[in-house]
Amino acid sequence: MDAFKTQLRGLGRHAQQLAYRSLDQHLRVGITGLSGAGKTAFLTSLVHQLLHAQETHLPMWQALHEGRLLGVQRQHQPDLTLLPFDYEGAIDGLCQSPPSWPPSTRGLSEIRLALRFVPARGLKRQLTDHLTLYLDLVDYPGEWLLDLPMLSQDFAQWSAQQWRMLTSEPWDRHAAPWRARLDAVCDDSVDEIAQGYAALLSQLRSELAATYLQPGRALLPGELAGTPILAFFPLPPERFERSDDPLRDLLAARYDAYCQQVVKPFYRQHFARFDRQVVLLDTLGALDQGHAQIDQMAQSIQAIMQSFHYGPGSLLRRLFRPQIDKLLFVAGKADHITVDQHPNLLALTDSLMGESGRRARFSGGRVETMVLSAICASQQGQIDQGSGVVPVIRGLDPQHQPTTRFPGEVPKRLPSAGFWQQQGFDFATLAPPRLERPQSALPHMRMDHLIEWMLGDKMR
Amino acid sequence: MDAFKTQLRGLGRHAQQLAYRSLDQHLRVGITGLSGAGKTAFLTSLVHQLLHAQETHLPMWQALHEGRLLGVQRQHQPDLTLLPFDYEGAIDGLCQSPPSWPPSTRGLSEIRLALRFVPARGLKRQLTDHLTLYLDLVDYPGEWLLDLPMLSQDFAQWSAQQWRMLTSEPWDRHAAPWRARLDAVCDDSVDEIAQGYAALLSQLRSELAATYLQPGRALLPGELAGTPILAFFPLPPERFERSDDPLRDLLAARYDAYCQQVVKPFYRQHFARFDRQVVLLDTLGALDQGHAQIDQMAQSIQAIMQSFHYGPGSLLRRLFRPQIDKLLFVAGKADHITVDQHPNLLALTDSLMGESGRRARFSGGRVETMVLSAICASQQGQIDQGSGVVPVIRGLDPQHQPTTRFPGEVPKRLPSAGFWQQQGFDFATLAPPRLERPQSALPHMRMDHLIEWMLGDKMR
Repeated sequence: MDAFKTQLRGLGRHAQQLAYRSLDQHLRVGITGLSGAGKTAFLTSLVHQLLHAQETHLPMWQALHEGRLLGVQRQHQPDLTLLPFDYEGAIDGLCQSPPSWPPSTRGLSEIRLALRFVPARGLKRQLTDHLTLYLDLVDYPGEWLLDLPMLSQDFAQWSAQQWRMLTSEPWDRHAAPWRARLDAVCDDSVDEIAQGYAALLSQLRSELAATYLQPGRALLPGELAGTPILAFFPLPPERFERSDDPLRDLLAARYDAYCQQVVKPFYRQHFARFDRQVVLLDTLGALDQGHAQIDQMAQSIQAIMQSFHYGPGSLLRRLFRPQIDKLLFVAGKADHITVDQHPNLLALTDSLMGESGRRARFSGGRVETMVLSAICASQQGQIDQGSGVVPVIRGLDPQHQPTTRFPGEVPKRLPSAGFWQQQGFDFATLAPPRLERPQSALPHMRMDHLIEWMLGDKMR
Repeated sequence: MDAFKTQLRGLGRHAQQLAYRSLDQHLRVGITGLSGAGKTAFLTSLVHQLLHAQETHLPMWQALHEGRLLGVQRQHQPDLTLLPFDYEGAIDGLCQSPPSWPPSTRGLSEIRLALRFVPARGLKRQLTDHLTLYLDLVDYPGEWLLDLPMLSQDFAQWSAQQWRMLTSEPWDRHAAPWRARLDAVCDDSVDEIAQGYAALLSQLRSELAATYLQPGRALLPGELAGTPILAFFPLPPERFERSDDPLRDLLAARYDAYCQQVVKPFYRQHFARFDRQVVLLDTLGALDQGHAQIDQMAQSIQAIMQSFHYGPGSLLRRLFRPQIDKLLFVAGKADHITVDQHPNLLALTDSLMGESGRRARFSGGRVETMVLSAICASQQGQIDQGSGVVPVIRGLDPQHQPTTRFPGEVPKRLPSAGFWQQQGFDFATLAPPRLERPQSALPHMRMDHLIEWMLGDKMR
C-alpha cells in the first residue's frame, strides 16, 4: 500500500489526477412504478433532498451525518435524446398558491447530479481529499416492465391469457361492448378495433384501477401513437382453431414486431444500463379500490419481478445482460395513513410479492421493501370521540379544504374478498403542501433511508 | 426460351407460382419537399388517381392506356413503426363543405398500394397472365435533407456559415434580438437560448419565407421535442478564438451528437431504401415573396441535390449506399398560373438548380423537372379589359369567394433584385375544389406524366 502511494507520487501531476479521477464513480438508477404510483413526486423530492441536503433533515444518510458531503450540483444529462426530467416545473407547481402535484410521467426522462464528498477511510482517503459520484436518475413508466412476459409468449398464448381476463369479473362487463365489436371485425376495421382495445385498456385502468394491462405502450404510446405496431389486440380462442385466418396472421405479425422492435429495444438500451432500481407501488390506492384490484396489483408486482430474475442461462440475461445490484420496492404515500399502520403497510406490500418474491434473492442481491412518503402532505394527530383516543391524519383535501381523517387499518396480508364488505378505507389523495421558496425544506418520511440505501455504499 | 418454358412446366404448380411471384416487383418512392410545398396534397392526389385510375383521365399512363391495368388496391404498410399516411383524412377534408386542404406533413408517413397488371410483352408475358407491383410511397419533410451538408462540417464551420446568414439582409433584423440574448448566455440559460433559436428559425420561415434553415429537426422536432440533442445553436466567430470555452464544447458535443444520432440514422434507415425520389418545390411561393427568398430557395435546392450526388468514393455512398435510380423535381401548384406560363415555370425551376445541377446527371441517372398541379383549384379563362385579350385563372380565394386573377408572368431565370420593384406577382393560395364523393375524379394537371415517370418502366 505504501509502495503503491510512492509509485503514484512518482507519476507526474497529470497522471496522478487521472488516477484519482478513476476513483470517481457513476451510478445509474431506474425509477419506475405503475401510472399513479407517484414517480414524478418521488423523483422531485429525491432531487430536492439531495440538492438541499445541508438545509434539510436527513439523519440516516451516513455521509451527510458524518459531514463528508461537500456539495451537490445538477449537471448536463449524459443521454442527449432523452427528455430532461422537469425538476424546475415540478418545484414551480409546488410553490404556486394553491400548490399542485407534478404532472405524471409520459415516457423516459433523465437527470444527472454530481455529489462531491470526502471518502470515509482506506486507500481512497489516502489518495485524494475528495471524490465525485455522478448519479443519473432515469424515470420511466412501470407499464413497460409488464411487457416483459410477452417475450416468452406467442400471439396465441398471449391472446388466451388476455381473453381470460377480459371474460372474468370485474373486467368482463366493461369489455363486453368491445368484444361484441370484435365479432364483426373485417380487414377494413382492424385499426379501429385496435383503437377500441387501447381505449378499453385506458378505461379499465381509470375506472376499475386495473394494473396488469398489455401492451404497455397502448396506454402511453408516445412517438408510436397511430402506428400499426401498436394496432393489435387479443383474439378469442376459437380464432386459433381455423388453419387459415389472414386477420390472425396480421395481428400475430404485429405482436411479434412489437416484441422485437419495442419491448426488446427498451431492455437493451435502457434497462440493461441501470445499476439500481426503485419500483414505486401504490398499495394504498389499490386497497382503496377493492379485492380484484389489489389482487391484480399482486400479479403486476410478480410480473414486474420477472424483469429482475435473471439467473445464469435466463432469457433476460442472454438477451440483455442486465447488471442491477440492488432492487427496492417502495410503498409510497405513507403520509396518507397514520404512522402506527406503517408496519402493516410494509407487511402487506411484502406479501403482495408472493412467497417466491418475498423470500427470493433476486439475481443481483436481496429485494428490499420500504414504506415512505416522498412529499409529506399531512400531519399526524389524535382525536378522542368518546370511545378512546384514535390516531388521525390532518391535511388538505384536493379542493384545498382542511380535512381530518382516520384512514382505517391497513391489513397485514392480502385480505379475502369478503373483507371489503365489512370495512372500507379512506386513502384518497391529499393536496400537496406548499413550498414557500424553491429551496425551502420539503417535508418527507424516510427519504433519508432511501438515500442511504441508494448511495451509502458508494460514498464510503 | 422455349426450353425454359418447358422446364418451368416441368415444375409443380407450387414451384411455378413461386417463379411467377419472383417477377412481382417492389418500388419504394420517397416524396419530399420543404414545408408548404404541398406534399400531402400531392400524395393524396397520387393515391387517388391510382386507386380510381379507371374512372379518371390519365392519358399519358401507358399501362392504363393499353388496358393492361387490372386493378389497384391499398395494402397494409410494410414498416410497422411508421405512421400510416392519412389518405382518408385528406379525402374527407376535400369532401367537406367548404372543402379544406389536407394538413401538412409532421414527419415520416407511409402508404402501400398493390397494382395488378398484364405484362406488355416478352418473357414475363409468356410466363404469367398478370403481375403485381407493390408501390410504397413514403412522405417526409424536405428540411431533413437540408441537414446532409452538416455531416461534412464541424461545429465551427457550421457556426461560421449560419452566422453569415444571421448577420446579412434580410434575415439580420429578425435575428438581432436573439443575437443580443446570446451575448448574455450563461450555463443556466443555454436551453432557453436554444429554444429562442428554434423560435427564430420558425419566425424566419413563416415571416420571411426562409427555406435553408438548420438544424431541420428544430422546425419539426417530433419525438425529440425538448431533448438536449436539439438544444444547440451557432456561436459568433469570436467564440472560436479562445482556447477554453465550456459552452462552445457543450454545443459542439450536441452538434456532433445530432449529426450521428439524428441525421445519419435517417439516411441509413430511410433514404438508403428509396428506389425513386420526388422533390416538390414551391417555386411560385418563393417568387411571390421576393429576391432573397427565391435566391435562398436556389441554395436549398442545391443543398438538397447534394443528397443525390453519391458518385463512387463519396461520403454518402460510403456511409449509406443509396440506390435511387430516378430523381424528379416537381414545380407544383401549376394551377395557380395561366397555362401559357408553364414553360417559363419549368425553365425557372431548372435554373434554380444552378449550372452544375441542371446539366448534371445525378449518380443514379438524369435529374428531371416537371410542372404539374396535383389538385387543380382553378379554371383557365380569358378576359379583355380593352387592351387586348389576356389569359386569367378563375377559382375561389381562401375565404371561398370567387376570384379572377391574372397572376403575372413567370420569369424564365432567377431575376435580379430590382425586378421586384417593377413588378409583383399574385400567386396566393386558392381554396381547394370540392369532391362530391370520395371516389369522384380529382382534377389535376399532368399527374399522368408523373405516374408514367414513376411506374412506366416497371409495368412493361
